[in-house]
Amino acid sequence: MNILIIGTGAIGSFYGSLLAKAGHRVSVLARSDFEIIKDRGIRLTSDTPLGQWHFMPAEVIRDQGTLTVEPDIILLCTKVLESLDRVALVRPYVGPSTAIGLLSNGVEIEAPIQEAFKDHEIISGLAFICVTRTHPGTIWHQSYGHVTLGNYPCGISEKTRLLAESFELSGIKALATENIVTARWQKCVWNAAFNPLSVISGGLNTQEMLAFLNPLIRSIMDEVMKIAAAAGHPLEHGVPDQQIEGTLNMPAYRTSMLNDYESFREMEIEAILGNTVRAAERVGVAHPHLATLYQLMTCKAQRESRKPRITPAPKEALENASH
Amino acid sequence: MNILIIGTGAIGSFYGSLLAKAGHRVSVLARSDFEIIKDRGIRLTSDTPLGQWHFMPAEVIRDQGTLTVEPDIILLCTKVLESLDRVALVRPYVGPSTAIGLLSNGVEIEAPIQEAFKDHEIISGLAFICVTRTHPGTIWHQSYGHVTLGNYPCGISEKTRLLAESFELSGIKALATENIVTARWQKCVWNAAFNPLSVISGGLNTQEMLAFLNPLIRSIMDEVMKIAAAAGHPLEHGVPDQQIEGTLNMPAYRTSMLNDYESFREMEIEAILGNTVRAAERVGVAHPHLATLYQLMTCKAQRESRKPRITPAPKEALENASH
Repeated sequence: MNILIIGTGAIGSFYGSLLAKAGHRVSVLARSDFEIIKDRGIRLTSDTPLGQWHFMPAEVIRDQGTLTVEPDIILLCTKVLESLDRVALVRPYVGPSTAIGLLSNGVEIEAPIQEAFKDHEIISGLAFICVTRTHPGTIWHQSYGHVTLGNYPCGISEKTRLLAESFELSGIKALATENIVTARWQKCVWNAAFNPLSVISGGLNTQEMLAFLNPLIRSIMDEVMKIAAAAGHPLEHGVPDQQIEGTLNMPAYRTSMLNDYESFREMEIEAILGNTVRAAERVGVAHPHLATLYQLMTCKAQRESRKPRITPAPKEALENASH
Repeated sequence: MNILIIGTGAIGSFYGSLLAKAGHRVSVLARSDFEIIKDRGIRLTSDTPLGQWHFMPAEVIRDQGTLTVEPDIILLCTKVLESLDRVALVRPYVGPSTAIGLLSNGVEIEAPIQEAFKDHEIISGLAFICVTRTHPGTIWHQSYGHVTLGNYPCGISEKTRLLAESFELSGIKALATENIVTARWQKCVWNAAFNPLSVISGGLNTQEMLAFLNPLIRSIMDEVMKIAAAAGHPLEHGVPDQQIEGTLNMPAYRTSMLNDYESFREMEIEAILGNTVRAAERVGVAHPHLATLYQLMTCKAQRESRKPRITPAPKEALENASH
């Protein structure tokens, strides 16, 4: 298939390169890394048996650049950010039979794309991976890597099945699911708790959060469980327990939202928290914990955009007693 | 009256000095500032018409030191902290007819004192004041200063009335109330919202909190209102509105909890939040917002006690995409 990867960050580079490995003609739309990728492609190193490999895209274009071939699948691998118009990014490359794939975090992130491209097949995907873009065009894959794919709002198309098979061919696990929206909610149970708390707590990793904030993590997870169920995507009762248990058994881990925050990058607050809160409001589920996190995170993001985040050195120790 | 002030921070120094001004024989128990206060007393400067004055205590003692006269009233003016055994601090000076006064923030802070001194009169007081100990034995009074006093669990004794009159004589407003516990809950509506949020938000002042976190502030206040009512101390419906309106009309203000946090001092988390959450559990009122704040604050405090709080400089901007 002809595949266009939009976004050459860690996710786009990693999964695009695997599709090329599987024999597809894979092009990329690069933004800040255009020059270097055009020049020498993308170098990947994995700590897993995948080892090292090199990915030279069939075509490398910039935003609004032109492709010589209409893609069978566009795979949008950017983060889902308020500042990024995903529809505008995708639109120039959507031919009559192009399927649009979304590989990103968050819930209810497909609707704006489906709305803009009503007659097009939408493939929605989740990546479970630790992967880092260490430099432009250079990717370090630490661990995991499996994907879950399905059509939006449900089903498994031929292209989706082919994508999953191609990933498996390249050496990672790929699951095609009839209910990708349910899978998104399940991932959101984890994301909505750990990602915001890592920032609000002042930089805790997963093990520290589990040590200090366990009941709060559970309360947040339970809210997401209820929202998912009311939104028509009930999850198995054991999901929070499994996720907490699984996280306890993982090495201490800093969330992507914390990394974004500490690097002054925009955070996926709306995709992960905002959409969850709006879903809760729509279906009428109480969500005080999520609402609290959402407001605190929105506040952090708004402040970040206004001034550099510098912790003032403690002044002379004043004993101030008031209100 | 013979009055012993325990604690020569901002609150103890300020209110002790006013009682001396009113003609009482006021001694102080000083801890870290003992030497300097013993030597030259306490110097106070107010930005209000109170002006400047000097307070030379009748006796200055250290912790476990001895007094020559049994106090009619002990006024405990320390913060309410887990690390501080208030009962042990008071016990050596409690004579058969000594009343024990508590001038501090928080709810349900009287019970442990009443429990330890069953037959003694307990006076409970709230200070509404901006006052700072700029150096040992040196106090800067910025604004406000009124106190509300009453007996625990209710009523107004002769000593309470005398205290209030003495404060009024010295130039500040003092209200004696039949229901000091209700007054504590009312102050807690403000404290339980603004104090923790100022820390969790990363250092916002009152005006910034009102700009960024208004709905969250309301949700927290509404929970405290419900807990107070269920605990037998219903407040007037308009209290949250009045407090928000009043805070909007105050100059931007950094809470005492934020000052404590940034100066690496212990915070009054239990007195303000912990006791409120425990009251909610006891009376069976849902309190998800308070529970969230309580866990986040407990987490912050536990982390602080383990390592210095230094914000790591942002590393090379890695684009990390994961979980």
